[in-house]
Amino acid sequence: MRGVMMYAPGDVRVEDRADPVILEPTDAIIRLSATCICGSDLWPYRGAEELQETPQPMGHEYVGVVTEIGADVKNVAVGDFVVGSFFTSDNTCEICRAGYQSHCVHRTPIGAEGTQAELARIPNADGTLVATPGQPDEDLIPSLLAASDVLGTGWFAAVAANAGPGKTVAVVGDGAVGLLGILAAKQLGAESIIAMSRHADRQELARQFGATDIVEERGDEGVAKVKELTDGLGAHSVIEAVGTQASMEQAIRSARPGGHVGYVGVSHDVSLDGFELFFSGVTLHGGPAPVRRFLPELIQLIWDRKIDPGVVFDLTLPLEQAAAGYTAMDQRTATKVLLTV
Amino acid sequence: MRGVMMYAPGDVRVEDRADPVILEPTDAIIRLSATCICGSDLWPYRGAEELQETPQPMGHEYVGVVTEIGADVKNVAVGDFVVGSFFTSDNTCEICRAGYQSHCVHRTPIGAEGTQAELARIPNADGTLVATPGQPDEDLIPSLLAASDVLGTGWFAAVAANAGPGKTVAVVGDGAVGLLGILAAKQLGAESIIAMSRHADRQELARQFGATDIVEERGDEGVAKVKELTDGLGAHSVIEAVGTQASMEQAIRSARPGGHVGYVGVSHDVSLDGFELFFSGVTLHGGPAPVRRFLPELIQLIWDRKIDPGVVFDLTLPLEQAAAGYTAMDQRTATKVLLTV
Repeated sequence: MRGVMMYAPGDVRVEDRADPVILEPTDAIIRLSATCICGSDLWPYRGAEELQETPQPMGHEYVGVVTEIGADVKNVAVGDFVVGSFFTSDNTCEICRAGYQSHCVHRTPIGAEGTQAELARIPNADGTLVATPGQPDEDLIPSLLAASDVLGTGWFAAVAANAGPGKTVAVVGDGAVGLLGILAAKQLGAESIIAMSRHADRQELARQFGATDIVEERGDEGVAKVKELTDGLGAHSVIEAVGTQASMEQAIRSARPGGHVGYVGVSHDVSLDGFELFFSGVTLHGGPAPVRRFLPELIQLIWDRKIDPGVVFDLTLPLEQAAAGYTAMDQRTATKVLLTV
Repeated sequence: MRGVMMYAPGDVRVEDRADPVILEPTDAIIRLSATCICGSDLWPYRGAEELQETPQPMGHEYVGVVTEIGADVKNVAVGDFVVGSFFTSDNTCEICRAGYQSHCVHRTPIGAEGTQAELARIPNADGTLVATPGQPDEDLIPSLLAASDVLGTGWFAAVAANAGPGKTVAVVGDGAVGLLGILAAKQLGAESIIAMSRHADRQELARQFGATDIVEERGDEGVAKVKELTDGLGAHSVIEAVGTQASMEQAIRSARPGGHVGYVGVSHDVSLDGFELFFSGVTLHGGPAPVRRFLPELIQLIWDRKIDPGVVFDLTLPLEQAAAGYTAMDQRTATKVLLTV
């Protein structure tokens, strides 16, 4: 099969890879219908994170059709169209049952399999894959693919930030996750949603997803603007979808005492001052999103055409042109790149 | 009146101070029945925190009888026996109504008044003071005084840590707040409570308050013990009642993914690693406890003799001997010192 490998920062190649095979009776093999490039793939691409191996298979977002199942797999069948997420999970352990499948005691990282490819092995298939109600219409595939990570992650951020009726939600980060955090906050009933963005095209998408206010300022000036919009108190809920020191500080300072910060940008070189955090009075929750918790609900919302998260993909390329997709995301000429397989 | 002043680290004196007077129509004056020394008073005593002024009036825990009220005070009357806490609050602003009175937009620190004294001015009296159902029996006074801070703070920590039925709660810190966090977790219905303590007398009190297990190890060894007791997963809920780098790390690492850490030790020189926190999957909430939120319930529990938090006071001295009380707490010969007035 063909698959994407990263050899070094900036060096992404599509090449022949061995077809995956069933290794455990709980595995499934899927044929990808579509895959995509994640903001987190840019960390190693930019040299900000070491490669785990050289070359490294890439990709952890996926939708596709089951082609083979291990002897113990019962919840999905060959031919099912399925959605999964970036950590596999048994969905039966105590951590999973509490809704934290991304921390499952048997989790495995899908990134190790590399779903920017024609085929992929999915460990823990029963607890990881969710079948759609039937074969999806072609135009639903981008949205189902979004559910695999960026929508699920933005949704978790909104839930972690306690977004809901009567709440003002501020969103730090206007990438795909931040934008879909806006969509999630809107779906969860937020009263007003402040998007922090200085890019006209992303502001437009933010408004389309439900943002009621746009704040272009960053850092303490951005915080001051959020306070102006919230009677000087700060937002009830803040979604952090970047992962830098500046974005975390902006998020925490934008929340009111007793407010919630849901952070899903993978923290890089972030150090939180305990004294400031203590007196902020906020609740901080985040980490790798337990997307599996939300998949059944998200798939249904997409299936019923109540949400259209797939519009975050603003560039579609064939898998063979993956390198151009990485370049586009790195240079911010695209927000999110879908790869057709 | 007589009152405690700190002149410098280690230098505490009881001296004549001007009687407080009504300054605002929302003030009340109370005659203290009892007051006490707080673990946080030890920070400046040990030179770990600068004095705000020199000399500085001390004390922020108080119970007593209202002797005078300002023209606008309606909720308490002269003669009422009242309990308040370390931040005054209007109890009507949006932050108060959300239960975060310690962050009230009109809050004032009672520490600035100094309640280690015969009399004290209480700003925002209507939103700060809670009257007991009648004049309390003498033996209830220590428990009512505990409600003013250490019980209210331990209770908030347990609530912030999401303690409740079916939960395993670990408690880092065996001072008065940590011990009363155990009492709170028990009252909230926790299934098992792990006290982290290496002092025999405090272990005994911990068991009396509801601890089911004692862990003497600290740091990563303590974390390993908590994991042993929780099927390798970590506690559902962790109370942090110290405020150091080591105690915060111990608390976060003792919690399972999806678990909650309630931290109420005032953070001193604490810096949290963003990457570790991200992948821990815990929820972190804490800060200065909104004791006012809990006071009506706590007073009732004490009044009905369902809880006896006053036993944390293991040394009682007259106000005039406050300096000896500071020495005893500094040298850990006493857990918590009550000063009779």
